[in-house]
Amino acid sequence: MPVIFAAAVEHASVLLALFLMIAAAKLMAEIFERLRQPAVVGEILAGVIIGPSVLGLVKPSELISIVAEIGVIFLLFMVGLETKPQSVYRVGKKALLVGTLGVILPFVAGYFIAMAWDGSFVEAMFIGAAMVATSVGITARVLGSMGLLDRETAKIILGAAVIDDILGLIILSIVSALSSGTVNYLELGKTAAMAIFFVVLVATVGSHVINKLAPRVRQLKLSKPFFNLGLILCLGLSVASIYVGVAAIIGAFLAGMALAEATEGNHKMHQLTSGVTEFLVPFFLVNIGMQLNIAVFRDWSVVLLAVIITVAAVLTKFVGCGLGAWGMSRREMAQVGVGMVPRGEVGIVVAQIGLSLAVITETFFAAVLFMAVATTLIAPPLIKMLYSEDKDQDGIDDVIVETDISEMYPRIG
Amino acid sequence: MPVIFAAAVEHASVLLALFLMIAAAKLMAEIFERLRQPAVVGEILAGVIIGPSVLGLVKPSELISIVAEIGVIFLLFMVGLETKPQSVYRVGKKALLVGTLGVILPFVAGYFIAMAWDGSFVEAMFIGAAMVATSVGITARVLGSMGLLDRETAKIILGAAVIDDILGLIILSIVSALSSGTVNYLELGKTAAMAIFFVVLVATVGSHVINKLAPRVRQLKLSKPFFNLGLILCLGLSVASIYVGVAAIIGAFLAGMALAEATEGNHKMHQLTSGVTEFLVPFFLVNIGMQLNIAVFRDWSVVLLAVIITVAAVLTKFVGCGLGAWGMSRREMAQVGVGMVPRGEVGIVVAQIGLSLAVITETFFAAVLFMAVATTLIAPPLIKMLYSEDKDQDGIDDVIVETDISEMYPRIG
Repeated sequence: MPVIFAAAVEHASVLLALFLMIAAAKLMAEIFERLRQPAVVGEILAGVIIGPSVLGLVKPSELISIVAEIGVIFLLFMVGLETKPQSVYRVGKKALLVGTLGVILPFVAGYFIAMAWDGSFVEAMFIGAAMVATSVGITARVLGSMGLLDRETAKIILGAAVIDDILGLIILSIVSALSSGTVNYLELGKTAAMAIFFVVLVATVGSHVINKLAPRVRQLKLSKPFFNLGLILCLGLSVASIYVGVAAIIGAFLAGMALAEATEGNHKMHQLTSGVTEFLVPFFLVNIGMQLNIAVFRDWSVVLLAVIITVAAVLTKFVGCGLGAWGMSRREMAQVGVGMVPRGEVGIVVAQIGLSLAVITETFFAAVLFMAVATTLIAPPLIKMLYSEDKDQDGIDDVIVETDISEMYPRIG
Repeated sequence: MPVIFAAAVEHASVLLALFLMIAAAKLMAEIFERLRQPAVVGEILAGVIIGPSVLGLVKPSELISIVAEIGVIFLLFMVGLETKPQSVYRVGKKALLVGTLGVILPFVAGYFIAMAWDGSFVEAMFIGAAMVATSVGITARVLGSMGLLDRETAKIILGAAVIDDILGLIILSIVSALSSGTVNYLELGKTAAMAIFFVVLVATVGSHVINKLAPRVRQLKLSKPFFNLGLILCLGLSVASIYVGVAAIIGAFLAGMALAEATEGNHKMHQLTSGVTEFLVPFFLVNIGMQLNIAVFRDWSVVLLAVIITVAAVLTKFVGCGLGAWGMSRREMAQVGVGMVPRGEVGIVVAQIGLSLAVITETFFAAVLFMAVATTLIAPPLIKMLYSEDKDQDGIDDVIVETDISEMYPRIG
């Protein structure tokens, strides 16, 4: 290769990584679909395989993590587009209870496991914090591909995940402050108030503003005006979210929800957005798998700790969130419980913060990372199973055709 | 903002840059559409405005340049999807002549201008090389938005751009070798042969392979099988292109062309791809504008040189490529000529290589950069004008409806 193309080859190595990630993801998705398993699991495993654990073809990098983040941002934006605000308000109380119980139980479990494992107080608080996070993207992806995002339990899971994220922010703020010695409760109160204010404001006012603007948007000379407005709103609210302290995906979800009514039945808008998510989401999934480095698990005590934490992570969310949905049928309670299990990228980020602040040991880091990836792999088959039974029973198939846009077109795309 | 989110805030600054770029691009696109000017010009100017030249809100960065490159890759992939191989073969000879004359004239002009401006021999060769490059993405974007990619002149421009890129590779290889003192003609021959072999092979065999595979692709369990195959092929051939020495966009274009027949009439595939391009292309356009730093032009001699080089760049491509289309009508010759004028990112890259090899001065670099951006801004209105007259004359409007997918859907997306 001519030496002059050094600059181009730098890009080439990035493009090569992206190519390997998407090719591996789609190959594994195809295999898992044939085995009647959720495609997401295949795509995450693709990351384990091409990442440092097995083949070492692609290394996690800052650039890849940003592409992955844009992927999950658009995934939640897309989910937001299919979520009318009213449908979330309706389940608001239940979501609050699900979110809260789903934070308390895992936190307490994580704290006591770490304490029992000779962790320090701050370390135990951090492990608790890492157990709290829900990666709602995974559940949304599975339910979306089954065309079930319009179910009541899906709304509860989405609402609870938002509450989860705010409570997680507060806990993480306290825990991080503890690690530096002092907690400034005034600052903390401000942070929490800001986050809650932002979410409530956008969730309640956003949709009205967009609905009022819609006739004007339609008159824009710009091609694809709604889609472009969506792109701007999605990125803008994602950035704003990070600045107020909550995850970017919360902003993206709110952006989608704000547009949900104005773009209802706008297939073109949904198809265009679907193109972006279809391209970018695999990087998000593969990147989760790539975080794992199996080499750490040569030490049996690490494996034992990882397994204990994982089992506790699954059970506490399942029980806590399931109980939060009290009053619904047993199956629905189980659906909500299992939908909140994946920790995914959120758990990984918390563990990374703990490591960077030097308050958790490598052993705990490895165990939490394992838990984050394992819960993300365990949940999708359970979600699929619990919702499929449902489908068989009440002939929900009609609804799928109505809501899953991808099914409305001939199967040639 | 809580200090713990340092990691998240790193991402936030990238997301903020992307948000500012797309918001500025779409605002300017809307303004230019209202002024009946090409939206691309508005989007490039958006980059000049938010970049170092005026507001300094966003700095060019490695990450942004990669997002921009992925944008232009998908743009050419999309153009490829609308280009059946046969239609390019048919104009092959003409494209060869257009491409060749469009390389010789600008190279000679650049060489002599630099020599007259007291440049060294190697410097003059480099300026010549920078004048050669065509940024076909710009022309493709303008013609695509007018629904005119199916015109014979469009095919000639696309074919000539591929030839242009190969000749550009050879010239750049020679010039770079000269800068280090010796030219290894054997190596050079190998590089050129590799590039030509790769392009010819993919262009001739690609479509047949895909057409044969199409029935099997349709049977895949994977959702959106053709779109996913397209993503993999697009990224894969882009990477392969860089490794054989030609631009990534050539590979992306060939990937699209290979799929053109198999996905003809597959609106879903086109809509999904369109979602990706619509999201990413603005970053490509804005990034071109952001490269410019007007501060360099305080020195009048730099301005003079920049203007001379720009005028020469426009005239030599217009005359050279126009003459290459000899035998067509005057208007068609002019269309081909003006379609090859934009130098865009390719000219910028060549200038950057020259600067990094320390063979061109800052003055020449600034002038070439100006030429690259200016030709890219000048061409679109001329392209629009020359093709619009055509449209009025022969009632080509029916064709637009058939070919521009965006027009087939209600104007609400």
